[in-house]
Amino acid sequence: MSINEQVEVEPTKFESLQCADDELYEFSRRAHLAKGQPIGKLMAQALKFPDLISLAAGFVDNATLPCEETRECLRSICDDPALLRRALQYDATAGNAGLRQTLAEWCHHAQPETAPDPDRIILTSGSNQFLHLLAEAILNPGDIVLVAAPTYFVFLGTLKGIDAQAIGVAADEDGIQIEALQEQLEQLSAAGQAGRVKAIYLVTDFDNPAGSTLSLERRHQLVELVAAWRKRYGPLLIISDNAYQLLRYSGQPLPSLSSLAADASDYVIESGTFSKSFSPGIRVGWGIVPQYLVERLLDMKSNVDFGSPHFSQVLMQQAITSGAVDHHLPRIRAAYHNKLQAMLSALHAEFGQQSDVHWREPAGGLYVWLTLPEHIDTSESGALWQSAIERGVLYVPGHYCYPDQGVGVAKNTIRLSFGVQNAERIQDGVARLASAIRHIESL
Amino acid sequence: MSINEQVEVEPTKFESLQCADDELYEFSRRAHLAKGQPIGKLMAQALKFPDLISLAAGFVDNATLPCEETRECLRSICDDPALLRRALQYDATAGNAGLRQTLAEWCHHAQPETAPDPDRIILTSGSNQFLHLLAEAILNPGDIVLVAAPTYFVFLGTLKGIDAQAIGVAADEDGIQIEALQEQLEQLSAAGQAGRVKAIYLVTDFDNPAGSTLSLERRHQLVELVAAWRKRYGPLLIISDNAYQLLRYSGQPLPSLSSLAADASDYVIESGTFSKSFSPGIRVGWGIVPQYLVERLLDMKSNVDFGSPHFSQVLMQQAITSGAVDHHLPRIRAAYHNKLQAMLSALHAEFGQQSDVHWREPAGGLYVWLTLPEHIDTSESGALWQSAIERGVLYVPGHYCYPDQGVGVAKNTIRLSFGVQNAERIQDGVARLASAIRHIESL
Repeated sequence: MSINEQVEVEPTKFESLQCADDELYEFSRRAHLAKGQPIGKLMAQALKFPDLISLAAGFVDNATLPCEETRECLRSICDDPALLRRALQYDATAGNAGLRQTLAEWCHHAQPETAPDPDRIILTSGSNQFLHLLAEAILNPGDIVLVAAPTYFVFLGTLKGIDAQAIGVAADEDGIQIEALQEQLEQLSAAGQAGRVKAIYLVTDFDNPAGSTLSLERRHQLVELVAAWRKRYGPLLIISDNAYQLLRYSGQPLPSLSSLAADASDYVIESGTFSKSFSPGIRVGWGIVPQYLVERLLDMKSNVDFGSPHFSQVLMQQAITSGAVDHHLPRIRAAYHNKLQAMLSALHAEFGQQSDVHWREPAGGLYVWLTLPEHIDTSESGALWQSAIERGVLYVPGHYCYPDQGVGVAKNTIRLSFGVQNAERIQDGVARLASAIRHIESL
Repeated sequence: MSINEQVEVEPTKFESLQCADDELYEFSRRAHLAKGQPIGKLMAQALKFPDLISLAAGFVDNATLPCEETRECLRSICDDPALLRRALQYDATAGNAGLRQTLAEWCHHAQPETAPDPDRIILTSGSNQFLHLLAEAILNPGDIVLVAAPTYFVFLGTLKGIDAQAIGVAADEDGIQIEALQEQLEQLSAAGQAGRVKAIYLVTDFDNPAGSTLSLERRHQLVELVAAWRKRYGPLLIISDNAYQLLRYSGQPLPSLSSLAADASDYVIESGTFSKSFSPGIRVGWGIVPQYLVERLLDMKSNVDFGSPHFSQVLMQQAITSGAVDHHLPRIRAAYHNKLQAMLSALHAEFGQQSDVHWREPAGGLYVWLTLPEHIDTSESGALWQSAIERGVLYVPGHYCYPDQGVGVAKNTIRLSFGVQNAERIQDGVARLASAIRHIESL
C-alpha cells in the first residue's frame, strides 16, 4: 500500500480514537494522551503555595544566570549592523550555520577527531523540542523505547503523547544495567517484538532524576550490545540526552557514546542544550543525528516552525565565540557544587543515622535521588505529600519518573533538586522534609 | 473504552503504518507524511541557483528590518538588571504574562471591548508553531478541515502530517465563498461526516497565497453559518490566521471574526505573529483560543518545549510598550506598499494587453496571485518552470496551495511575493517571468 492510498482514511476507521470525556470539547486522542502533565500539576502546587521551598523545579538558579556575559554579547551584536540584521531575519530550518559549525567544534574540543559534520546538527528551542521531533520521526504508535528507570518524566510524557511504549530497565548509580537491558531485549525478541524496539533513551551524565552517570565500562558494553542487535534485527538507536553534561562538579568527563566505536555515529544520537549551562530564556538546544535522519527531521520541523528563533541562535553563537560560555561555566559549576554539598550535608545530618534512607551522590547535574523506607508512599495520594506541603516543602514524587512497563515503580522515592534554592533554603527544605517524614512515621 | 486501555496497543495493530520505502531507515508514518515539503524544494532551488530573482520566498525585506528599534529595546533590557535576569530564565508554558496582557490590549486597541482575557493567549515561536499545536489538539486522523482554496501551503503540510483531511472551498477576491462553504458542509453532512468536520481555516486578511481579504459581509455570514452548524452538529471552530493583518496598505481594517457575535470567541480562534510585522528572527507568535482549549493546549506544549523562548518574549514586550512596533509599522507598510505598486505596475506593463492573464490587487500582505492562460502548467514538471529558471526567476507554483480534495487545482496559477526584492528587481523578475511565458507560448 502506498503512502497516498493510506492517506485516504475511511470516515469511521478512527471513531474509536474519539474520547468524549470532556463536556465542552471533544479533543484529539493526542490531546487526551497529553493530559495531566506532572510538570503542570507541580507548577499548580507551587503557585497555590508560593511560600513553599520548592526542591521540585528543575529550573536553574536565578542568582547565577549570565547577565553580564549576555549584556556583553548583545552589545557586540548591536555594534555589528550586518549581524544584528541577520539575527532579525529567518534562517535555515536546521538553524544558523555558524552556530552549528561552532557547536561541532566546541562540544568536541577534547576529542576533535570525533567532531560531527555540522550538517548533522539540528538546532531547536531547548533539547526537549529536539527529543520531541525525534520521537515523532522514528516512532509509530505501539513502538517501543527502552529507558533507564527512573528516567526524565517529560520524555515519558512525549512517548505517551504519541502512543509509543516506554519500558523501564533497571538502573543504579552507574546508570542503566546492561544485563537487565540485554534480558529485556531478549524477552522482546522472544515475544516477536524485536522490530518494534526503536531506541534506548538515556540521560547519560548526572541524569534526571537519579543523578547517576553511565560508567565507562557500561558505555562500551551498551554500544557493543546495540551494534550486535543491529546486525541481527536492524535499526536500533541510542538517544543520549546530554542535557547536564556540561555541569560536572567532580571527576573526569567520560567519552560520549558516539565516540566509542568507528560507526557509532550511525546509531547514537546526542542531544544537548544551553538551558542548564547558560540560559533557559535564550533557549537553544540541539541534536546531533546520523546523516540519514537529517532530511526527514527537517521536513517535519518545516511543518512546525521552519526553524527555531534565529536571534537566540546568533546570541548563543556570540556567547560561545566570545568566550562568555567558557567563562561562565566554571562559575556555575562552583555554585551548583556548593549547593549540592549543602544538600548532601543536610541529608547526612537528617538521615545519616537511618539505615533505610538512601541517596546517591551525583558528580554533577541538578538532582539528588532519595529512597525512603519501602512502606512510605511519596505520591500525592500518600500521607507524606500532604505533610510536606504543610511543612512548606515541595518535591517530585519518584513515581512520575517510571514508565508503566518494565521495572516496577519504587513509590518510596523522591527527586530533590538543588538548582533553584540557595544553600540555606536547601538545608531548611531538607529539614522540613525530614520533619514531615518523622511526622507520618509517628502516626 | 478508557484512555488507559487504549494505550495498550497490540503489537501488530499498527504494522500497516510502517512505510519501508527508505533503504537506510524505517521512519514513522508521520515522517513519511511530512516528506517533500514545498518549502524545502523551493529553498533547494534557491540554493542551487543563487543568482535567481526569487519572487517565491515569503520572507520579509532585509532592508526594512527594525534594527535601530531592536537596538534600543535591547539597551533598555540590558539597563534593567532585574528584567534582563528574568529574560534569561524560564517562564510559564503559555509565555510571559506581561506580553500576553500587552498583546490583549494592543491587538484590540481599536475595539477595546473585544480584548480577550490574557489567559486565553498562548505565545509560540511564530504563529505556525501555534497552528501546529492547535491542529494536534483538535484533529484525529481522518478529521476534516475546510480551507479556502488556494490556501497557505505550510498549513496543508501540517494537516497532511497528522493524517487529517483538508477540503478546498472556492474562494475569490473577497475570500472564501460562503455559498460554496455551505454547500460543502451540507454534502459532508449528507455523507454522514458532519462529526468529522472540526474547523474552517482562513488567512482572513491579505491571504497567503491569494492576497484576498474576507469581506465584512462574508465575515458576518461565516460567523452566522458556523453558529447555526454548531447548534445542529456540535463543535466547529473557525481558525482565523491573522499573520498579515498588521500589513494593510490601503482601506480600513475590518473587524476580527471573534468580535462579530457575542459568543464568537467560543468558536473563533485567532492567531497572529510579529514575524511579518516586526522580526521573524525574534519569532514571537500567538494564538487566542476559547477558555476550554487552554489547558489541553498547554499540556501538549509542555511535552514539546514547556514554553517558547522567554528572551524573545521579553524583547517583543519591550518593543510594544516602548512604541517601537507602532513606530516601525507605518514605515514597513509604506515600503511594502511601494513594492506592491512596483509589482502591479510591472504586471500591468507585461500582461495588461492579455485578456487571459489575471491578477488580484491585494490591500496588504506580501503576495500577488497570478492566473495564466488555462493551458499553461506552472508546476515543476511543466515547461514554464524550466523556462523561468533559465531566465533567472523563481516563483511558487500555485498547485502547492490546493488540497487534494474539494475545489480542483488551478495548475495555471502562480504565487508571486514582493516581500524580499526591491522595486527594481521585482520589475526585472516580472519581466523575466513574462519572457519565460512568451518563450513557451512560442514553441
